[in-house]
Amino acid sequence: MSVLVVGSVAFDSIETPFGARREIVGGAATYFSLAASYFTKVGIVAAVGDDFRDDHLALLNRRGIDLSGLERAKGETFRWAGRYHFDLNTRDTLDTRLGVFADFKPKVPERLRKPGSLFLANIDPDLQHDVLTQVERPALVGCDTMNFWIEGKLDSLKRTLKKVDVLVINDGESRQLAGEPNLVRAAGAIRSMGPTTLIVKRGEFGAAAFSNSGIFAIPALLLDSVVDPTGAGDSFAGGFMGYLAKHAERKAIDDVMMRRAIAMGSVMASFCVQSFGVEGLLDLDPARIQQRYDDFRALSHIDGA
Amino acid sequence: MSVLVVGSVAFDSIETPFGARREIVGGAATYFSLAASYFTKVGIVAAVGDDFRDDHLALLNRRGIDLSGLERAKGETFRWAGRYHFDLNTRDTLDTRLGVFADFKPKVPERLRKPGSLFLANIDPDLQHDVLTQVERPALVGCDTMNFWIEGKLDSLKRTLKKVDVLVINDGESRQLAGEPNLVRAAGAIRSMGPTTLIVKRGEFGAAAFSNSGIFAIPALLLDSVVDPTGAGDSFAGGFMGYLAKHAERKAIDDVMMRRAIAMGSVMASFCVQSFGVEGLLDLDPARIQQRYDDFRALSHIDGA
Repeated sequence: MSVLVVGSVAFDSIETPFGARREIVGGAATYFSLAASYFTKVGIVAAVGDDFRDDHLALLNRRGIDLSGLERAKGETFRWAGRYHFDLNTRDTLDTRLGVFADFKPKVPERLRKPGSLFLANIDPDLQHDVLTQVERPALVGCDTMNFWIEGKLDSLKRTLKKVDVLVINDGESRQLAGEPNLVRAAGAIRSMGPTTLIVKRGEFGAAAFSNSGIFAIPALLLDSVVDPTGAGDSFAGGFMGYLAKHAERKAIDDVMMRRAIAMGSVMASFCVQSFGVEGLLDLDPARIQQRYDDFRALSHIDGA
Repeated sequence: MSVLVVGSVAFDSIETPFGARREIVGGAATYFSLAASYFTKVGIVAAVGDDFRDDHLALLNRRGIDLSGLERAKGETFRWAGRYHFDLNTRDTLDTRLGVFADFKPKVPERLRKPGSLFLANIDPDLQHDVLTQVERPALVGCDTMNFWIEGKLDSLKRTLKKVDVLVINDGESRQLAGEPNLVRAAGAIRSMGPTTLIVKRGEFGAAAFSNSGIFAIPALLLDSVVDPTGAGDSFAGGFMGYLAKHAERKAIDDVMMRRAIAMGSVMASFCVQSFGVEGLLDLDPARIQQRYDDFRALSHIDGA
């Protein structure tokens, strides 16, 4: 089963206590597709400017990502600049320039209109909805969003959520979307809006999932070197959706598979944060991924009795 | 194996978004000993004032806790007042009145001087050290501390830590004590100060443990009703030390037992936060505790492969 992602491709300028990078390739769709590419065939629908060069494209090409839906428009690629604080848990946005992303109207090319699964990364919920009307209903629809849309376009977001299977957002967004400080009750409210499953990204504290099977929660891997958290959430979503796309070919998505997929999302996020930008996602191999997945299972394992 | 705890017994006045209580029995030694009492014989060394009545004592007597080390001094019992914010993750201290706790000099009575294990709850590290000199070296020494002592009495704290097996503190305290923002590296630095094992309490995000066996991490149970986080950390420590005291009678403390003890600590903390003050720790039974422990193991379980 393939996965199609719609979202941003961007140039990021990042400062952390461990160094800085200027105008490196980033964006939700980039992180997502690189992470997912280790599990399944991935296509991107996004827009970049005419400053997005062939060596930038090469990053995605190397991983065999279908770029037929990557529109090259006249103007500048979306740029974001941010600075992380000492403990990496908080950051300040220093600059945002939307460039061609301001007028982005996703157009899914003919060849990508029957995706096995679809991930609507964090963009305007009206655009997310528009994409859903362009494709044949995939077996699985995942979605991300943020406080900006919860505050500014709640009705549009709710219309999109009705067609979403898995919503992947963070703690604060979950509480805000539900208007409820208790996460368990917030999850109940959100699941009544459409998504069967809510996955709550908790940053360095891992993830929690709420579904018909109950509650699942895991910590994140504890790493002795974390240099740049940018893209961790999108890498998580890419590993998660990629794993499901790979394994749902042969069997239905049940609780066991869902838990493994969430663990694999955490594994891909852990590779992401150990290097700047997408670096940590470029040269992985199945053995390294499996090793870390095994480490991850061992991390929280409690022997019976 | 028994457990002896040295720490505060207090009157707490607590405001949370879910209600308020005035001058209810609290304090680290109270929460700790109630939680531990479900697993082993517990003794307390602490001081209260002459305003601490028999009905207050009854709370601890009911659970069979040895109060021969609970000194009743002339004056007021230690009082603390605090208000929790909407999401319960942060709180403001509204008032602290040390009362008889200001001159507290722990005196371990003769009958408690050979404890199987010892927990030094958060008090002046010089007093913690003094207690260590009063008892026969227990099989296991646990210890808590806080930013106040890390900032004000670091040398004394380091002297105490040399004699401690398991340090149980939170994220921020770990980073502060080690002077290192990365938790894995902070744990390495702290373990070189004395404790073989560092357990990091992460509040609603669970706990992480660093030992010779590597890293263990678990989320906290996700509960649909949390009304008062006061005492969660001390209940955790009580469940943890109590479980070890019970099971280390028959076998050595290995990684498997340590992981189970940490899970049991989390279970006792989860009971604590569902009611105000110590209420949630008063009327438990082995079946309820075991049921929640099983729920807890299921929470993070990932099937093989």
